[in-house]
Amino acid sequence: MTRYHHLAEELAALITQGTLQVGDRVPSVRSLVRQRGVSAGTAMRAYDVLESRDLIEARPRSGYYVSDRWRRQVPQPRRSRPPRKSTSVEVSELVFEILEATRHHQAVPLGSAFPSPHLFPWAKLARTLGSSARHMDPWVTVESLPPGSAELRRQIARRYLLSGASVQTDEIVITSGALEALNLALAVLTKPGDIVAIESPTFYACLQAIEAAGLKALEIPTHPTEGVDIGALRQAIARHDIRACWFMTTFQNPLGATMPAEAKRELVQLLAEHDIPLIEDDVYAELYFGDERPRPAKSYDAKGLVLNCGSFSKCLAPGYRLGWVAAGRFVRAIQRRKIMSSLATSIPVQEGIASMLRHDGFDSHLATLRAALQRQQQEVVRCVKRHFPGEYRLGVPQGGYFIWVELEEQADAMRIYREALAANVSVAPGPMFSARRAFRNCLRINCGHPFTPEIERAIALLGRLI
Amino acid sequence: MTRYHHLAEELAALITQGTLQVGDRVPSVRSLVRQRGVSAGTAMRAYDVLESRDLIEARPRSGYYVSDRWRRQVPQPRRSRPPRKSTSVEVSELVFEILEATRHHQAVPLGSAFPSPHLFPWAKLARTLGSSARHMDPWVTVESLPPGSAELRRQIARRYLLSGASVQTDEIVITSGALEALNLALAVLTKPGDIVAIESPTFYACLQAIEAAGLKALEIPTHPTEGVDIGALRQAIARHDIRACWFMTTFQNPLGATMPAEAKRELVQLLAEHDIPLIEDDVYAELYFGDERPRPAKSYDAKGLVLNCGSFSKCLAPGYRLGWVAAGRFVRAIQRRKIMSSLATSIPVQEGIASMLRHDGFDSHLATLRAALQRQQQEVVRCVKRHFPGEYRLGVPQGGYFIWVELEEQADAMRIYREALAANVSVAPGPMFSARRAFRNCLRINCGHPFTPEIERAIALLGRLI
Repeated sequence: MTRYHHLAEELAALITQGTLQVGDRVPSVRSLVRQRGVSAGTAMRAYDVLESRDLIEARPRSGYYVSDRWRRQVPQPRRSRPPRKSTSVEVSELVFEILEATRHHQAVPLGSAFPSPHLFPWAKLARTLGSSARHMDPWVTVESLPPGSAELRRQIARRYLLSGASVQTDEIVITSGALEALNLALAVLTKPGDIVAIESPTFYACLQAIEAAGLKALEIPTHPTEGVDIGALRQAIARHDIRACWFMTTFQNPLGATMPAEAKRELVQLLAEHDIPLIEDDVYAELYFGDERPRPAKSYDAKGLVLNCGSFSKCLAPGYRLGWVAAGRFVRAIQRRKIMSSLATSIPVQEGIASMLRHDGFDSHLATLRAALQRQQQEVVRCVKRHFPGEYRLGVPQGGYFIWVELEEQADAMRIYREALAANVSVAPGPMFSARRAFRNCLRINCGHPFTPEIERAIALLGRLI
Repeated sequence: MTRYHHLAEELAALITQGTLQVGDRVPSVRSLVRQRGVSAGTAMRAYDVLESRDLIEARPRSGYYVSDRWRRQVPQPRRSRPPRKSTSVEVSELVFEILEATRHHQAVPLGSAFPSPHLFPWAKLARTLGSSARHMDPWVTVESLPPGSAELRRQIARRYLLSGASVQTDEIVITSGALEALNLALAVLTKPGDIVAIESPTFYACLQAIEAAGLKALEIPTHPTEGVDIGALRQAIARHDIRACWFMTTFQNPLGATMPAEAKRELVQLLAEHDIPLIEDDVYAELYFGDERPRPAKSYDAKGLVLNCGSFSKCLAPGYRLGWVAAGRFVRAIQRRKIMSSLATSIPVQEGIASMLRHDGFDSHLATLRAALQRQQQEVVRCVKRHFPGEYRLGVPQGGYFIWVELEEQADAMRIYREALAANVSVAPGPMFSARRAFRNCLRINCGHPFTPEIERAIALLGRLI
């Protein structure tokens, strides 16, 4: 944690625990510098954080005062209540319509699935890619068929260790992004007509994959901060022949939910009892705001039933299309399916990213990236609180770059999406994330872009449309 | 054509047309230099070509004489006669067993599917990749979703023009190698249980794709030099509900067959009459030995029914995994399926290859590559003629880097494959290339590696095992 973060947390505690009361004047920047021996820059950035969290507010020519706005407790979105039946999925058309509309407009990207590309170390990536390609033994282009570069897989296994999961190098298959990994997992585990349990709401690419494979989706009630409801899953398993689960256990897209460690353990145990494989989509795990990476469900996997899918697209190298799956007992089947569907993943890209991981840059980049995403989230949340009317509910995750807003019952996210797009603002409407086009009163808002007045104006526009 | 090639062709004509007879002494290198005004190097390389084609032979201390070995007419393999029924495919296990065995041995790669990696411009590729990544606008990583880089697609469309096919830029979707393109095409055109017409023998990845998708294969009789038998295909269409054809129309793997232009035109017309799409696997087309690239069937496609799949893996950048499909009327469906299955193809790789194509290096590299492959093929053919016993049949294609040998009826390619592998020589046995594990007396031999005495010894070993 940086110095100003520490300072901000300390002052925040004074406010939330009541030492400083609403209306109290907080120390001036100058006195803070004197008392704490910090720089003026550090003090000011700490106050920026507190202000973005509505803990303090500036009064012109008078200084900072404890605000009451932080007390405005915006409630969390509700736990979802999908029907108990499995359903075939027909959401692709809607999703494509929205993705294409969003892409063709030069819109304010509140609906984007990506973080700002300006948050990534492009120059260093390019240098490393060029240099790795230059030093590549031409024979690896023949020999590096799946599972992929041994060095890259070693580096990935090493990072799993840091997160508390013990994953063997030879359990990992390199893929062209996590999406290929997820699709390979689905292809290996299921056949048309099978039932796959998913979260509700769920990432639309999961719905599309299920639709393309002719599978049935069974939506499991999902809590906005704690993820899949294990009790509900247990009942679903009793009632249905579930062939696989596809869950995003950490910073779930779109909710931002993270299953607590204990729930992940319980999940793995429950599935092990029934020999049901878990496709764990874990692509946001490195984007945590807390002190350490949340443990993946994979870390509790004793039977090799968890296929943990990861990617460098969100945390290091968007567009390089490099992902992987730690596939447990399914590693050989995945490897073969990969050879059959796309042969290999670009070898110079594998070599380049392996080199980035071997040398130090990755962790320091991640620290910067996480801090930026957290700041941006604070700003977006502040704007939402300022501009959204009525009794909405808001999930504020501890990582990733999405927030999920549940509006009042009668709100129409599709209308808001269309009207916002006409005004050059994109937003992701709830029905994209549901096999039944539910969540008609919900929005997913992207916080992955450096905050600007344009973003505040876009959020204000959403507020007016609501 | 290079100088020495011209000279060789001229001398070859003198021999094959009878001006020079068997046993005649041919002019010495020195007299050739004097008479033709060529360099000694050119004369010697021309004689190397003639010798490799068994048109002349050196006698110690006496010079070169017209040989009779070239008259030994090795007959072509026979046109295949698959049964007229469609069949489900179960060949993956055999193919994987062979691929894995071949890969784990440091064997002489006569069974390899790849040309030698030493034939490619790695240094230049690495420079271009690094430089393209350095100059890449970070926003392209968000915006270059399928269909892929516009510049790369323009360059590919430009190359189609050179081959006589008029393909629009917006008909092209960039993929992670041709294999992904082929699989996407299959996914878009068929559903489980459908019948797909294929060549006989056929590329094993095609069989694997059909098996993985739960399709049925209908093998069409295929001529060893002229490819798919159009008459037989016409009959098959009358009898079966064929949903798609998957043919490799130029330098077919494993036969090396190339459909004559007229047959390609007829094929496209026949399929247009029945509205049957053609997946045209065209990955070897740039590796021609003649004066120009054989026209693809795509060049006759007026209805948008031909999906021409290409790749840079065989002709420029193995392991970079960059391919494409010119998808005709299916472009939108392919693009969407690509987004759903792997999102995008590595953006810096797309930018790098686009830059290679924009600047000049590609064509001069291709000229060198083609000449090397032709030389290597001549050497391998010479060795086969020298070392293979009995009444075998041999196809010698005008491009690519495979030759196909049909041994006597009772030969057992699987035994030969296993015994050769035990002696550290790989070879691709015929049953790999058949839904019915037919072609038990056939071998595919790789000519993609610079010729060495080790290769001659390996071919001699095959001869002994036969």
